[in-house]
Amino acid sequence: MAKQLTSTQLDKLVNEITQQVMSRLKTDGTAAPTAHDPNCCAHDDDGRCVKHCSDRVQTVINSGAGRITSSLGYIPRDLSVARFIDHTLLKPDASAEEVAQLCREAREYHFASVCINSAYVPLCRDLLKGSDVAVCTVVGFPLGASPPEVKAYEAQLAIQNGANEIDMVMNIGALKSRDLKALHRDIATVVATCHANNVICKVILETSKLDDEEKVIASQICKIAGADFVKTSTGFGGGGATVGDVALMRKVVGADIGVKASGGVRTLDDAQAMVKAGATRIGASAGVAIVKAERGEKAATTGKGY
Amino acid sequence: MAKQLTSTQLDKLVNEITQQVMSRLKTDGTAAPTAHDPNCCAHDDDGRCVKHCSDRVQTVINSGAGRITSSLGYIPRDLSVARFIDHTLLKPDASAEEVAQLCREAREYHFASVCINSAYVPLCRDLLKGSDVAVCTVVGFPLGASPPEVKAYEAQLAIQNGANEIDMVMNIGALKSRDLKALHRDIATVVATCHANNVICKVILETSKLDDEEKVIASQICKIAGADFVKTSTGFGGGGATVGDVALMRKVVGADIGVKASGGVRTLDDAQAMVKAGATRIGASAGVAIVKAERGEKAATTGKGY
Repeated sequence: MAKQLTSTQLDKLVNEITQQVMSRLKTDGTAAPTAHDPNCCAHDDDGRCVKHCSDRVQTVINSGAGRITSSLGYIPRDLSVARFIDHTLLKPDASAEEVAQLCREAREYHFASVCINSAYVPLCRDLLKGSDVAVCTVVGFPLGASPPEVKAYEAQLAIQNGANEIDMVMNIGALKSRDLKALHRDIATVVATCHANNVICKVILETSKLDDEEKVIASQICKIAGADFVKTSTGFGGGGATVGDVALMRKVVGADIGVKASGGVRTLDDAQAMVKAGATRIGASAGVAIVKAERGEKAATTGKGY
Repeated sequence: MAKQLTSTQLDKLVNEITQQVMSRLKTDGTAAPTAHDPNCCAHDDDGRCVKHCSDRVQTVINSGAGRITSSLGYIPRDLSVARFIDHTLLKPDASAEEVAQLCREAREYHFASVCINSAYVPLCRDLLKGSDVAVCTVVGFPLGASPPEVKAYEAQLAIQNGANEIDMVMNIGALKSRDLKALHRDIATVVATCHANNVICKVILETSKLDDEEKVIASQICKIAGADFVKTSTGFGGGGATVGDVALMRKVVGADIGVKASGGVRTLDDAQAMVKAGATRIGASAGVAIVKAERGEKAATTGKGY
């Protein structure tokens, strides 16, 4: 399904699609959307957001995304890969005890967050109180086919219940129907709810169901709608993150927002390859094994760093 | 995972579990839940609901469930199997055009409903106006792991947008954690929203993830919480309806509420076997093929009926 593009072809595609997307979203004489938070009132001389957006970047860094612009492509020597990992348990039959175990591991290994279904947010908030681990939850998950209002309500309730990060699934059917306004509204509605509460919003594209053109369009619209991260996969869609998809998404969104690689990231090698390709966050259920491998490797390769 | 039980063992299990479930739900001195609609005020001499509940049964019949008590186990001679089928398209990348095609087929074959993701409710409402096809949508789908309030909000919005039937996924994790009060609240919250709007509510158990004891507990709680149907599967959970599960669920809920067999029902033989086991509704994406097979068989077996 996915065509392999050369770097030049990709640049051309990104430019063309960006123009098309902006043009589509601008029809009807409505104001052109911007990549900035619509709630943001403070801009510098170049019109760049200097208030909410810098706050948001700080939130992203604090919650373990790494130095988005300064360390793209590698894990800084003074950070464990753990700080890039959302420790994830999203299977529908997960029990409270399994979620509690996830939280214990997250405290012990200092993962960026636990990523759990939204009914478990209150439990994780209580169990992670006083730790450096964020509570990340999912909305419209894993199909992304509920209305934006429902996703925003799920996000709002999760935030009230203690969630610090929201991973939404975009409306894939809207993209397939080339209803880009609906797709933009879908994402922007949830982003607005998150940002009004100073919470970051990641947008899941479900890349396994998209061709390259659709991945570019979706990444572009996420950026325009103010998302803090683009994320590859739900883990339920029959495919996961690939190095190629992460690189493509990073190319489209630039260095200002995060890229989360999720789905099928099971080893330290996988995680490092994703970071090298441009990922600033990893969604994985194998976080403990990945960190254990890192500790082993670090001991064996002291001084080498990576 | 599932143990095969004899009929006597099953009877015993149902009785034991019913007592346990009622006892668990009654703790804290709160009022014991009943199998009746909490909004229902009119009861006959035996305490049976004669107002809302009879209305609800009528709604179920009108929307194609068949004669729940009078025709259990077979498809009446004057009905096509089509009237038992929710014509289903739930894949996340379904385009508007694919959903429109589903609606055209539903009109042509007179399916009970189209079953689509909630973002497509307004489109289906418009396309099915004036037809005998209901609009069925899903909430908390397919994981069931969002809070009851989110499921109820999704149901409310879908009903406002034109949905006639709501298929919710119950909180499987609550059952696995044996938090039966949370499970009851999860289901009763959505049922209350549906019934306040005179809309029926089906509850998906995701049987492939449950053992027999859990299937009995879940079916029992659905009945107590006032659900109109118990339903086997989402189609996304790694397993679908089985004849054994449908028979078990029918045994637990009795003849008063519906059983929907969904997931993997692909042929006329499958559909007929499910009805024989006690299903009063079939969820299938292969409805057109099933009805075509029925037409062929009917022509070849005129007078035999079934």
